[in-house]
Amino acid sequence: MTRQRRSGGPTILEVARAAQVSRQTVSNALNAPDRVRPDTLRHVLAVVDRLGYQPNRMARSLRTRSTRQIGYRLDPDRSGTASVLQDRFLHALTTAAESADYLLLLFSAGRTSDEFTRYADMLRTGSVDGFVLSGIDPGDPRPGWLAERRAPFVCFGTPDPGGSAEDLLTVDVDNVHGGEMAVDHLVERGHRNIAFLGWPPTSGPGEKRMQGWQRAMRRHGLAPDRCVRALDTVSDSTRAALHLLDASPAPTAVVAASDTFAMGCYVAARQRGLDIGRDLAVVGSDDSPTAAVVSPALTSVRQPLDEIGRTVMRLLVGRLQNQPPTDTHVLLEPQLVVRESTGQV
Amino acid sequence: MTRQRRSGGPTILEVARAAQVSRQTVSNALNAPDRVRPDTLRHVLAVVDRLGYQPNRMARSLRTRSTRQIGYRLDPDRSGTASVLQDRFLHALTTAAESADYLLLLFSAGRTSDEFTRYADMLRTGSVDGFVLSGIDPGDPRPGWLAERRAPFVCFGTPDPGGSAEDLLTVDVDNVHGGEMAVDHLVERGHRNIAFLGWPPTSGPGEKRMQGWQRAMRRHGLAPDRCVRALDTVSDSTRAALHLLDASPAPTAVVAASDTFAMGCYVAARQRGLDIGRDLAVVGSDDSPTAAVVSPALTSVRQPLDEIGRTVMRLLVGRLQNQPPTDTHVLLEPQLVVRESTGQV
Repeated sequence: MTRQRRSGGPTILEVARAAQVSRQTVSNALNAPDRVRPDTLRHVLAVVDRLGYQPNRMARSLRTRSTRQIGYRLDPDRSGTASVLQDRFLHALTTAAESADYLLLLFSAGRTSDEFTRYADMLRTGSVDGFVLSGIDPGDPRPGWLAERRAPFVCFGTPDPGGSAEDLLTVDVDNVHGGEMAVDHLVERGHRNIAFLGWPPTSGPGEKRMQGWQRAMRRHGLAPDRCVRALDTVSDSTRAALHLLDASPAPTAVVAASDTFAMGCYVAARQRGLDIGRDLAVVGSDDSPTAAVVSPALTSVRQPLDEIGRTVMRLLVGRLQNQPPTDTHVLLEPQLVVRESTGQV
Repeated sequence: MTRQRRSGGPTILEVARAAQVSRQTVSNALNAPDRVRPDTLRHVLAVVDRLGYQPNRMARSLRTRSTRQIGYRLDPDRSGTASVLQDRFLHALTTAAESADYLLLLFSAGRTSDEFTRYADMLRTGSVDGFVLSGIDPGDPRPGWLAERRAPFVCFGTPDPGGSAEDLLTVDVDNVHGGEMAVDHLVERGHRNIAFLGWPPTSGPGEKRMQGWQRAMRRHGLAPDRCVRALDTVSDSTRAALHLLDASPAPTAVVAASDTFAMGCYVAARQRGLDIGRDLAVVGSDDSPTAAVVSPALTSVRQPLDEIGRTVMRLLVGRLQNQPPTDTHVLLEPQLVVRESTGQV
């Protein structure tokens, strides 16, 4: 541990000399404090602080079998959609990880098979202490794969809605409630004929948003009978939105399962000479960067990504420290960000 | 190096046994191949491959003094703007790093002082082999700080336009040419009265885009006399765009220094009853996710982020291997992505 340091920080020997103790005592103070007398411990740690000594991270990781690193796979690039949530989530996760003295080790694996190779590599080479998974859909094979190998991890998203998965740690947003919030807001603004535009039923979050729309419509005594499905590209969702707008009677409001679907409604409204916010109300989902900058600005259901990042790290740190989990499946509340696309009060 | 592995991969002893050689020979084959006879080397590496043995990364990093990790600070969260470039850049950089057998270690430091603390920590603890810097403006203190400490790094962006900085490795986009491309495209579409909307003059990329607009206007015999400055929020750029539109004669086209500035033009046009693409042409910059999904879709000058990521990693790997650099300041060409906001040909 006394190798020369590139950056010229103090060595453990310099700390020992300054503290007038042995090198072993400094090492014990840092790695096995119970072997050091309390007053000596305090004295040595004060000198460590004063000199700014830091043990080599790699050497420490070999001793403690901990890297203080968390593996995270970047979601695939989703060009052509508005939903660049990842940037905000990465920020939230990185900040939360730093607060717990962890750093995020990034990888990007195009295909699922590459992803497993990468997980296997990182586990074999001891590069990380655990993983965070995101972008999880029902039936996602990753949680099972990692659980089998006893790798510590936490999911942002719900892998298997009906499954047992008791040992799994998950953090998710209450997407059903998000769908309900959108409908409640539109009903409050006087709408009765409210359609839903979302993904094909294979999308986990999309289906929950749809269920929330259904549930709130029924609660308000309205028929949830206008639901169209599309891919979340602008062109495909424009076609689906035109289908809605050309029906008779046409809906006066649309709950969109993503901001990209909402942008399809904008294009369709423009093609039919309708003014968003006046002739047609639209609520998006995810509050992408686009929502705030389009004209008229888009009302959208926002995910509490900072809170998600903090909760994911809290659960993961608990697991890494082998604490019995206090909560295993955390469901957080979304927030409705009201802008111009749902008109004036 | 024979510690038990969490993931159950083979140990070096198992490799030695399977290859019928000593443990030291396996270690030499992996770390000092010149000490092993060629046929033995081939045989041992075949067994290593067959068993999927991988040496512990941390142990290897202590031997080789290399972590195969690159530090990267996430740009601060820029809510309220369209420019979420980072997501695409991170993808490009992570992919390029993986191709060179590196992983990206992320951190997020809110204030500049925290950022230096973090760099210092990473250097002292030997957590990374080098850094990639992005979001660089003229006078950025980070390159000088890292260079003083002899930390290997590459900049995406140009720290000091007029400075010496011979030893610095930088990759940047030819933003002057980007501004010119926007003007050439608008002139080709029949515009003569072309304004520029950008940041206050402290922004490095913004000033270069402005210079490109000026240069191309003069080349076409047009007066570059309508240049307004604003912050790149929608509200501030809307005010600036209204100022342009209310002038007499009003410009028929605007070159915007970012897609957020372009969105300000959209709001202003809507307020003045002008149709984007018909009454007012707008070119954005950065081709943010918003550009493709707004209506009408935004013509924008795109940065070649994949190529930037690959070039940054090529320069960094060269420096880490102490190769004399073949190129130190790489300037890459942007690309004009033509969409509806500049009308029909």
